[in-house]
Amino acid sequence: MSKELDSIMCPKTIAIIGASSRPGTIGNEIMSKLVEYGFAGNLYPINLKTEEICGVKACKSIFDVPEQIDLAVIAVGRDQVMTVIDQCAEKNIKGIVVISAGFKETGHEGAELEEELLQKVRQYSMRMVGPNCLGVINTAEGVKMDASFADALPLAGKTAFTSQSGALGAAILNISKDLSLGVSQFVSIGNAADVTAETLLDYWKDEPNTDQVLLYIESISDPPEFRRLAKEITKKKPVIAIKAGRSEAGASAASSHTGSLAGADLAAEALLNQSGVIRVNSVLEMFEVAQAFANCPVPKGKRVAIMTNAGGPGIMATDAICENGLEMARISDKTKEYMRNYLAAAASVKNPVDMIASAPLDHYEKTLKALIEEDSVDAIMVIYLPLMNLDPMDVSKVIMNIKEQYPEKPIVAVMMAKNEFLSTINKIETNIPFYQYPETAANTMAKLYSQREWLDKPEGKVPAFNVDKNKVKEIISCALNQGRSQLTTLESIDVLEAYGIRTCKYAFASNVDEAANEANKIGYPVVMKITSTKISHKTEIGGVIVGISSEEQLRNEYAALIERLKEKGMENDLDGVIIQEMVKGDREMVCGVATDPQYGHLMMFGLGGIFVETLKDVAFRVNPVTDIDVKEMVRSVKAYKLLLGARGEIPAKIDRVEETILRLSQLVSDFSFIKELDINPLKISDKTGEGIAVDGRIEVVFEQARQALETSGASSGSF
Amino acid sequence: MSKELDSIMCPKTIAIIGASSRPGTIGNEIMSKLVEYGFAGNLYPINLKTEEICGVKACKSIFDVPEQIDLAVIAVGRDQVMTVIDQCAEKNIKGIVVISAGFKETGHEGAELEEELLQKVRQYSMRMVGPNCLGVINTAEGVKMDASFADALPLAGKTAFTSQSGALGAAILNISKDLSLGVSQFVSIGNAADVTAETLLDYWKDEPNTDQVLLYIESISDPPEFRRLAKEITKKKPVIAIKAGRSEAGASAASSHTGSLAGADLAAEALLNQSGVIRVNSVLEMFEVAQAFANCPVPKGKRVAIMTNAGGPGIMATDAICENGLEMARISDKTKEYMRNYLAAAASVKNPVDMIASAPLDHYEKTLKALIEEDSVDAIMVIYLPLMNLDPMDVSKVIMNIKEQYPEKPIVAVMMAKNEFLSTINKIETNIPFYQYPETAANTMAKLYSQREWLDKPEGKVPAFNVDKNKVKEIISCALNQGRSQLTTLESIDVLEAYGIRTCKYAFASNVDEAANEANKIGYPVVMKITSTKISHKTEIGGVIVGISSEEQLRNEYAALIERLKEKGMENDLDGVIIQEMVKGDREMVCGVATDPQYGHLMMFGLGGIFVETLKDVAFRVNPVTDIDVKEMVRSVKAYKLLLGARGEIPAKIDRVEETILRLSQLVSDFSFIKELDINPLKISDKTGEGIAVDGRIEVVFEQARQALETSGASSGSF
Repeated sequence: MSKELDSIMCPKTIAIIGASSRPGTIGNEIMSKLVEYGFAGNLYPINLKTEEICGVKACKSIFDVPEQIDLAVIAVGRDQVMTVIDQCAEKNIKGIVVISAGFKETGHEGAELEEELLQKVRQYSMRMVGPNCLGVINTAEGVKMDASFADALPLAGKTAFTSQSGALGAAILNISKDLSLGVSQFVSIGNAADVTAETLLDYWKDEPNTDQVLLYIESISDPPEFRRLAKEITKKKPVIAIKAGRSEAGASAASSHTGSLAGADLAAEALLNQSGVIRVNSVLEMFEVAQAFANCPVPKGKRVAIMTNAGGPGIMATDAICENGLEMARISDKTKEYMRNYLAAAASVKNPVDMIASAPLDHYEKTLKALIEEDSVDAIMVIYLPLMNLDPMDVSKVIMNIKEQYPEKPIVAVMMAKNEFLSTINKIETNIPFYQYPETAANTMAKLYSQREWLDKPEGKVPAFNVDKNKVKEIISCALNQGRSQLTTLESIDVLEAYGIRTCKYAFASNVDEAANEANKIGYPVVMKITSTKISHKTEIGGVIVGISSEEQLRNEYAALIERLKEKGMENDLDGVIIQEMVKGDREMVCGVATDPQYGHLMMFGLGGIFVETLKDVAFRVNPVTDIDVKEMVRSVKAYKLLLGARGEIPAKIDRVEETILRLSQLVSDFSFIKELDINPLKISDKTGEGIAVDGRIEVVFEQARQALETSGASSGSF
Repeated sequence: MSKELDSIMCPKTIAIIGASSRPGTIGNEIMSKLVEYGFAGNLYPINLKTEEICGVKACKSIFDVPEQIDLAVIAVGRDQVMTVIDQCAEKNIKGIVVISAGFKETGHEGAELEEELLQKVRQYSMRMVGPNCLGVINTAEGVKMDASFADALPLAGKTAFTSQSGALGAAILNISKDLSLGVSQFVSIGNAADVTAETLLDYWKDEPNTDQVLLYIESISDPPEFRRLAKEITKKKPVIAIKAGRSEAGASAASSHTGSLAGADLAAEALLNQSGVIRVNSVLEMFEVAQAFANCPVPKGKRVAIMTNAGGPGIMATDAICENGLEMARISDKTKEYMRNYLAAAASVKNPVDMIASAPLDHYEKTLKALIEEDSVDAIMVIYLPLMNLDPMDVSKVIMNIKEQYPEKPIVAVMMAKNEFLSTINKIETNIPFYQYPETAANTMAKLYSQREWLDKPEGKVPAFNVDKNKVKEIISCALNQGRSQLTTLESIDVLEAYGIRTCKYAFASNVDEAANEANKIGYPVVMKITSTKISHKTEIGGVIVGISSEEQLRNEYAALIERLKEKGMENDLDGVIIQEMVKGDREMVCGVATDPQYGHLMMFGLGGIFVETLKDVAFRVNPVTDIDVKEMVRSVKAYKLLLGARGEIPAKIDRVEETILRLSQLVSDFSFIKELDINPLKISDKTGEGIAVDGRIEVVFEQARQALETSGASSGSF
């Protein structure tokens, strides 16, 4: 794939089809950018009527270009695009950027045209950026291409950037010039008909001038592909993404617990998390975090030391460090002693180290060195408030000097100075990031650390359990044959059991002797519930009896039940009773699966029972999930403490809870037509600590299930 | 009080004691600031050895000053301060600013000196800012005083500011010059021995040049006073505060649920909330919010319309609006129709209104007017990304013009332009706030709306219930007499009952007949629990029997219990049994009281049972609480939905739950020595929806309780 995009990103010759000498036109804007930025190869503006554009000789047609063309930038009217593409094919051009708008973004007709365009591109083995895009930029020496109509001409650097919103992309490029954040490549993917964010993740993975990648995306067209490619690049280079549309009314009309909780953004959040993408929620935060990665190594751990010349900001920084999930490093007595030797008497040598306002320049130097050399310190925040005595630039230089000597730990500077100073420092070449406020620094340090966590995170396995697939097939087929897409509770429980999930034992009994017999088999205490197609309010007539602790009590309760039914003239409405194992335990969890139309199956785990919707203490992951994903999921909910036995209960068998989720994952991977699945509650037994599925519900997509099972039937049970 | 601070903030004559002509000294810095800033009154530098300082004739002593002195700024060595204060008293000076350091901040000796200083100040009827402070500033025409050694000389404006951290105060004043945020007065309170943040809240309440107040505080010295004064000013002017130290290991070593959840910052958070203070978490946010209040009216509601020239930022703004608790306004069909008339075909007339990149200047004008005139719109965010066609300054001017015509609704501008533009616009006089990113705008709009909520919030009442105070006194005295600070469960329940809280009915019985008798009185079902001082593991020997539904079952269970005890040879260890009303219900809440050493009693309400510590779905308020506070508290927890009967349960009697909290509040107000109190669970009856205190625990501060009750005993029961 790399090679294919090279014709777009590293062309030696570019034809600009629709180039114009008329100022204000896009064709002129792009030409003048290419010329102004100093494209290293040959430019061929294509224009029937003009001799020269921006000082470059124009050709009447691409066929007049005397050499091979790598990239065609197309800025003609929409209706000419197809013809131009055909001509490009004839000229054997492999790289295409379609600036022209009027495609999918305008509605149905445009979408059809875009599809046609894509077909041509595929047929001609071209790669295409756009249509409806702003263009592409590569700042590398030897390329120096700004083929865009953004007001950009960005600084060269190591950050690649792609944006699904052209205008926002332009704004970001523009503002990036305020920061010491140079760009390696920029691609405005526009409608992303061919080249998508995913393509670029793959391309930039091995792009030597790119150390980090910024994304602005509004939708992820192919989540599994995104995940696969993102996982590869994020293990090498940080990927920082804005995924807009967090607040969309994403909660589907699904009826299950899991479904109603899994809004579109939870899916996106899970996908980004599982792909190692660092999510930020604003352009500002994207810049801040990118500055950190551009100037800092990934820290070894999360222990931060703060040094400051004023107490207040030290406290605020400490607040921010803790709130961002980092830790305040403990400074060794030896180092404290050392610092006490030179710092003022009123200084504080504990973390945050407050050198106080009077600290001269060499205190910054000594203290920073001492903190870097501490084994217990993974990263350092240096705060300086300009007071009477020191020039902030001098302080900055001291910090940068030390960073040069000690490149291995992240150092982040906070200069609470006027904007002017920040502008100045951001325009010189720095080796540490400079921020104006400690909260910003703390957030970026947390993001640096999250990259460490990602790098250290094991790949994980998707285990394959021994399960009874045929049983599940039978159960679902049976429901389908009855015209149901929703399995009954008992069917659901049977499906779960077939996949090795510990379910609540139960049996059906049509009379008291059968009931006693089944209860004896299951073991007391048991629950007895009436089953009836006619009686709807089962609890109101005392149709659910819990805590039956002996055969004698069971027989008494059964008799009493019949008595109650007789009183109401309902004795003939009874189909029988279900005898169910009674699981004692206050801890009710939920496990489930929802289906997002875009992202597919989402696994859920969290606090169950009556609290699911109210407290929303649940975690989501996109299926398939690895054992590591599941470990994280289980540990990420607040209710995890309850599993540990925070209140003196027997600790839950957490590995078994994890296995339950992995088995569910296998179930929905095997039966992709399962739409929704809930185990609520997965009750933690107070006796054994086991998680037991006490209630279950499964719904399939009827037509999809029917086809899948019929097909499998035809292939004689090999499904 | 106003009058007293006038001598400090609006002096006609200032003596600078310790003024110096030597550059780099604080005495010189302050003099030169006063002169440079153009103090409107008379300056008298006091210095024994110098004739003239910064061009002003010096006096050898304050007694040489030929007129009344309003303010003495003292910048002498610490050891001279007392003498100087005595001289000031002799000269009848009422306003004092002590710049000199070396007091409380240096330890015990300094603290004693500070106390002595304060005594003098009080004795002489002076008011004093400091010691250990940066000075004071008043930008008002006719005063023009910069008596500080901050590198400030701030712009004049309507924002008053006080900081507990001098250095941070200086940094903030300095950075504020980058923004169109003028300062009315600044006070560096330093050690705040006399003039505190509270004093200033009171002073600034009626200060005509001050429209809003900014605070940086690390601690609140007198929380009730702060609350009282803050409540007064916040109903007139917004108060925006940073309260640092959020992450302090504030959770006390308290043993109760309430205690362990109530960290110091929860108390501060509650106090600020109950005082109407708008809390921000960084200096940056403080500036942003202050800019909004300086340029916007308080909106009528929370419905926001967004207009933009690019889709991406529109989506991001929508995300941010929703995440900040605001709502996206619905635009009427009529207005949509109107906008369709002139906007481009590809534009979107739904909220966010996307005028697309090609929109000319008059589209901004028309659209903004149309949105302002919509009844359903309370505030507008205008987003502009500089693209090829328009100058951001022109767009800004259009918006400001319309704001002038329609001053009644907040308009907030987001210009995603380079820093340079933001700097420029922030240096001219504006009538709307300008930000670089939509997330910032959304946050500030949410803060504007929070002021609306505060202004509309009724004062509330602290109701006085008819309670049995003597009964409580007796119960506690009895425990104290036994040397206990911790009441038993039954004592606790009795205390709650005496204060009219619905508690679980119970009775003690020493034999089976008594037990049956009590159970018949209470009504079935009941719970029977053994009481024994010798048997510790009551559940292990089946000592707690739930769900006893008849006298017959009770007698059987009692017999079986005795049987079990006999088997273990424990039959003589039984003291008797407790028969307790059995409250059925899955919804368990918690009500409690914790004591913060600084803030006093904190009321807590939230989700109870086994979830209290794990899920922390609880709300806190500082006592005393009003009925309105309690309404807010109850509605602020997620579990509120459970109270409403989100899952088909009978709705809880929410007014009774609120009354329970108010009665607890009265209880701890009456008995201030109650240290901790928990009702966990307050079980919501599935039958009646009542909240019933099923378990309670109360702990008092032994010595304090003993003294209070003895005293009251002496005054013959009038306690």
